[in-house]
Amino acid sequence: MASLPKKNVFEISEYERRVRLTKERMDHVGIEVMLVVDPANMNYLTGYDGWSFYVHQGVIVIGDRDEPVWFGRRQDANGARITSWLNDDSIFGYPDEYVQSRYTHTMVYVAQLLRELGVSERSLGVEMDNYWFSAQMLLTLESELPEAEIVDGHNLVNWVKTVKSAPEILYMRQAAQICKRVMDVAIDGIAVGAWEKDVTAAVVAAQIAGTDEFGGDPPAIFPIMPSAERTSTAHLTFDPDRKYQKGDVVLLELAGSRYRYHAPLSRTVYLGDAPDDLKKVADVVVNGLNGTLDFIRPGVTAEEVEAKWREHLKGTGVEKPSRVGYSYGLSYVPDWGEHTVSLRPTDKTVLEPGMTIHFMPGIWLDTYGFECSEPFLVTEKGCEKFIEYPQKLFVK
Amino acid sequence: MASLPKKNVFEISEYERRVRLTKERMDHVGIEVMLVVDPANMNYLTGYDGWSFYVHQGVIVIGDRDEPVWFGRRQDANGARITSWLNDDSIFGYPDEYVQSRYTHTMVYVAQLLRELGVSERSLGVEMDNYWFSAQMLLTLESELPEAEIVDGHNLVNWVKTVKSAPEILYMRQAAQICKRVMDVAIDGIAVGAWEKDVTAAVVAAQIAGTDEFGGDPPAIFPIMPSAERTSTAHLTFDPDRKYQKGDVVLLELAGSRYRYHAPLSRTVYLGDAPDDLKKVADVVVNGLNGTLDFIRPGVTAEEVEAKWREHLKGTGVEKPSRVGYSYGLSYVPDWGEHTVSLRPTDKTVLEPGMTIHFMPGIWLDTYGFECSEPFLVTEKGCEKFIEYPQKLFVK
Repeated sequence: MASLPKKNVFEISEYERRVRLTKERMDHVGIEVMLVVDPANMNYLTGYDGWSFYVHQGVIVIGDRDEPVWFGRRQDANGARITSWLNDDSIFGYPDEYVQSRYTHTMVYVAQLLRELGVSERSLGVEMDNYWFSAQMLLTLESELPEAEIVDGHNLVNWVKTVKSAPEILYMRQAAQICKRVMDVAIDGIAVGAWEKDVTAAVVAAQIAGTDEFGGDPPAIFPIMPSAERTSTAHLTFDPDRKYQKGDVVLLELAGSRYRYHAPLSRTVYLGDAPDDLKKVADVVVNGLNGTLDFIRPGVTAEEVEAKWREHLKGTGVEKPSRVGYSYGLSYVPDWGEHTVSLRPTDKTVLEPGMTIHFMPGIWLDTYGFECSEPFLVTEKGCEKFIEYPQKLFVK
Repeated sequence: MASLPKKNVFEISEYERRVRLTKERMDHVGIEVMLVVDPANMNYLTGYDGWSFYVHQGVIVIGDRDEPVWFGRRQDANGARITSWLNDDSIFGYPDEYVQSRYTHTMVYVAQLLRELGVSERSLGVEMDNYWFSAQMLLTLESELPEAEIVDGHNLVNWVKTVKSAPEILYMRQAAQICKRVMDVAIDGIAVGAWEKDVTAAVVAAQIAGTDEFGGDPPAIFPIMPSAERTSTAHLTFDPDRKYQKGDVVLLELAGSRYRYHAPLSRTVYLGDAPDDLKKVADVVVNGLNGTLDFIRPGVTAEEVEAKWREHLKGTGVEKPSRVGYSYGLSYVPDWGEHTVSLRPTDKTVLEPGMTIHFMPGIWLDTYGFECSEPFLVTEKGCEKFIEYPQKLFVK
């Protein structure tokens, strides 16, 4: 058997560009060393791609070191050798006794690593509100590195990620191709008497099978496919014991993913003669959606987009008290959102070309819901939908 | 449309039992109020089951209140009404402006809620090293509740979960039925010239389709199905652009899941004439695995189990420097392990009936790996495998 082959999803220059932009942002907020633990951010900077994020791991970006440093469990280090662009001297595997230990903590190892790298006395940025940066990680770093100044670098890499490069957009278009197929499979499969589990099984298979030319990756959110009263709420999935029935509303919040880049899309199916109130909600949402998309162009702010949407709701009786969209892209579970731009009041982000946003005005009422969304790319002159898919209530 | 129907996976008495055991453990470590944010622990105590854990949410267990309190995003509150056993006055939905905000934090809302419940001055347990308890959550609680004593309650509910009840074991057996089918689909599908993506698609579909009688849930870990050199490391998945080739080793770390209860299983396939070194590793592992299973019974400790395994490796040339198993059960992404019992040196947990452990002696060498594992239940007299599946290197 041969030695380990590298497989990089992007040119090394693309990764280097990302690291430069990260260091710029670090410098501007006074962070000399950045501890990046979000798996999507680790992937973004290094290419590392493994389902190892259930143990502590990370990438350390040091202002005056060319390559980031990867650390993780020793049994995952070959994964970094294969999937990242990093050289061997930037890859550190820690012994297994640090894993979920009651006697030590991986951050003890990281503190030691920072010392060995000679950077333990510099200002250290951490992703303070990230899923992958627990309170105990902060407490351990604080006690192990009394000499370091720990700074909140939450979402620092996420903001770099928010504007996509051309090669990233290429993968997002591939993800969109997959998503279109996935939505077809769902809408074709849903029928009175079909098991919810079987339609969902076909959907997850389509997500991975991708197209005839390339495969997909598992999206960061499992298919949200509630039926009937379960559509009155935002994040229920299928019922594994139920068949679709006449009179069911079925929400479909699905995605395609290519190299962890996403294309999300929501649509709604009704089985039977759709009630008038649902049809009315559908008309209002589709009308507001398109009116808002027409308004989007570089230079407008996220909150202005939401205000435009809200204008379209005025007098319709439909209310939407939550945000109507968010930035998305490269992600792992549990969320394909990037936690940066939100289409809602107070978000003053000025839209610029290369941003990718899921406009998702989900409506969840007392006993049912309706969803019709569009993922779009901000272009030089306006915005472009990633997916052309009929915008309507699908009645079967 | 009707009002919201409840669907509980267990009898309410089962949930009440779990809450009582949680309160007992809280009392024994001086925690009056426990903030449970792990989605599996939330499900365990209340039944709540939604893909909403990408925003802050939780269950609050209060020593002298019968029902736990659920809080989450307002648009998810109907999900709690449908899937949990809680009454409406135990369900609190927070407004959307708390979601991923740069101006406030959900823990500000939680501090206010604790005040409204009259328990903000009591000792507050938190899951300090949990994925879902970020550093910022701790910092915000500390600043909002200067009067509270915040105590580390990490893994407190996980330890309650570690010993399973009869109804839980029933679902774990159903998950095992699914897992067996899933493994069949994988081993049948892997062949020279087949796309890795297509076999993986069939695997994920089988996980959800379940059996003819009931559906599955998405396991907490996406199928780990690396091939060739990617098997030299622990957590790579399939390659979406590759077909299986002659000479491939393929690792299969798969699971079935029923109501989020798991049955994990690992096996290894070789395409072609297996090399002698791989065959030898397989023999050593299978022999050690069975020798160790024979040893397991209530009263032995986790570290004694690992020592027994290591005895079997002596003189074989095979080394296994990481833990060889862990407790598992009810989980969401990213891990089906419960983070309590580990089969490794220093773990002095005394095994008792009802514990469920995945004995997983994965071997990852320089350029390839081998996996053959067994999930088992500790019984009154020994242990029982959840799945009967041939233990060997599958050569095709």
